[in-house]
Amino acid sequence: MPVTQPAFSDWIKSTAAHIETVIDEFMTEADQTPERLHEAMRYAVLGGGKRIRAALVYAAGEASLSAGANLSSAQASALDHAAAAVELIHAYSLVHDDLPCMDNDDLRRGRPTVHRQFDEATAMLAGDALQPLAFELLAQMPVAPALVVQAVELLARSAGSLGMAGGQAIDCAAVGQSLTQDQLQLMHTMKTGAMLQASVLLGGIVVGAGSAAREGLERYAAAVGLAFQVADDILDVTADTAVLGKTAGKDQQANKPTYVSLLGVDGARDFLETLRLEAHAALRPLGPTGQRLAEIADYIVGRDR
Amino acid sequence: MPVTQPAFSDWIKSTAAHIETVIDEFMTEADQTPERLHEAMRYAVLGGGKRIRAALVYAAGEASLSAGANLSSAQASALDHAAAAVELIHAYSLVHDDLPCMDNDDLRRGRPTVHRQFDEATAMLAGDALQPLAFELLAQMPVAPALVVQAVELLARSAGSLGMAGGQAIDCAAVGQSLTQDQLQLMHTMKTGAMLQASVLLGGIVVGAGSAAREGLERYAAAVGLAFQVADDILDVTADTAVLGKTAGKDQQANKPTYVSLLGVDGARDFLETLRLEAHAALRPLGPTGQRLAEIADYIVGRDR
Repeated sequence: MPVTQPAFSDWIKSTAAHIETVIDEFMTEADQTPERLHEAMRYAVLGGGKRIRAALVYAAGEASLSAGANLSSAQASALDHAAAAVELIHAYSLVHDDLPCMDNDDLRRGRPTVHRQFDEATAMLAGDALQPLAFELLAQMPVAPALVVQAVELLARSAGSLGMAGGQAIDCAAVGQSLTQDQLQLMHTMKTGAMLQASVLLGGIVVGAGSAAREGLERYAAAVGLAFQVADDILDVTADTAVLGKTAGKDQQANKPTYVSLLGVDGARDFLETLRLEAHAALRPLGPTGQRLAEIADYIVGRDR
Repeated sequence: MPVTQPAFSDWIKSTAAHIETVIDEFMTEADQTPERLHEAMRYAVLGGGKRIRAALVYAAGEASLSAGANLSSAQASALDHAAAAVELIHAYSLVHDDLPCMDNDDLRRGRPTVHRQFDEATAMLAGDALQPLAFELLAQMPVAPALVVQAVELLARSAGSLGMAGGQAIDCAAVGQSLTQDQLQLMHTMKTGAMLQASVLLGGIVVGAGSAAREGLERYAAAVGLAFQVADDILDVTADTAVLGKTAGKDQQANKPTYVSLLGVDGARDFLETLRLEAHAALRPLGPTGQRLAEIADYIVGRDR
């Protein structure tokens, strides 16, 4: 008799609660010197959020198991490390993104941003210190060192100048510019897509996914990474600040090119549906273990914040 | 017949020139999108400098060889990766340190700082992208994966909230405060010492140093890390801006606690000599292969900029 899986809405909630506990336990430096810095790091990372990246790590790990196999306790622990690592990188990027020299945002997930709650120097240093903590967590994964090395290289490339940080730089330079769809896509593939893709692939690496599974995961991740950004752009014009938990209409005000400014709301919605179908198609070779990843794709497309 | 070693003054110059070439070759993303970010990253890293950290990596690698042994080509390549990695972390920390929300400095090594040459957002992102590139270089070292994992964990801890970034946060909070020698020492052990220590230990890890050698390297590194900062504090009051290549007297102006404000110039000089002797003593177990490390300690103590 097959084990009954919890419904997706319960799974995603319990995954978010789980990673919150995991990160809390990993951040053991909390009460050590310098206390204010550690307080800011915890404030930045433990503020809740959707935890999509962590969910992708866990779901991709599950998807990479052979049919009927279970995670070993070492694999489960390594997934915790990897999931925490991608959430730390994501959190640091938000902290730096919100700084006055970047987006100058006061509100994040309904709370004051880190530099408003603390100060600019502390916010910058908290981000600077969250990044190496992510690599430290990967280095401590209890799996074969060769897999750890692959994971470190992937995270490093995805966070760097050809990934997230590079996409951020293109985004900054694009304010007030009109971009082609290709240019916009390159920016988002780097800025948001690279770390979402890394989340999916890290799950596969930890569990030792074969090359066919990795190929499916890569294709899935590319579609989902882009879908996330298209959905974000649509929400920026259709949701209000209270629901969103961050300032709505910000991109429009900043005259940033978005999928909505390029394709209109309806065109962006059509593109989003194309990406959702592509994500589902990419998962077919993985079989039934890919179910959670498929549900995450639907969730990303359907979310209202 | 023993091979004649080049004089130290030639060795340190050729090491600095070598690491400049190595970093240049590693930064192959240079002409890729986003070009301005990559230009800023190269500007930050390839501006010359003393390259003490790289020299420590190479000298510690040499010191960890058994008597009469030579580096394999894989070990030599791995030392290049490790030396570049510590220089990238150092460079990123200077870029962020110079930003208006931190030290607000206009001049570094006699040239405009990165945010003056480019802009604040680009400087922050260049620093953000240099950090993962350092971890990527470690992940690509051609040595046993288990050694790579050790190296990643060490660099991550040394750059993080209990190392360099943490020391930086204490430094920021200490402006206008009076610290005890213990508090000042903790700050510098984290801010400057951690990465100098990491440089020495990385050289040992790459070459597979045994535990006795590692212990000597750790003790040496602790003394040299502190000596570096004491020498810096003395130079801040005795050197002029032209020789120093950065704004002299900056710490005094900023009312920062230093070894000179705590011990006076003569007291700081006495402390520096004590640390030099401790560094030499720590190297004794390593035998004649530790010669370059001993010379680096003398160089750090005797430098005029």
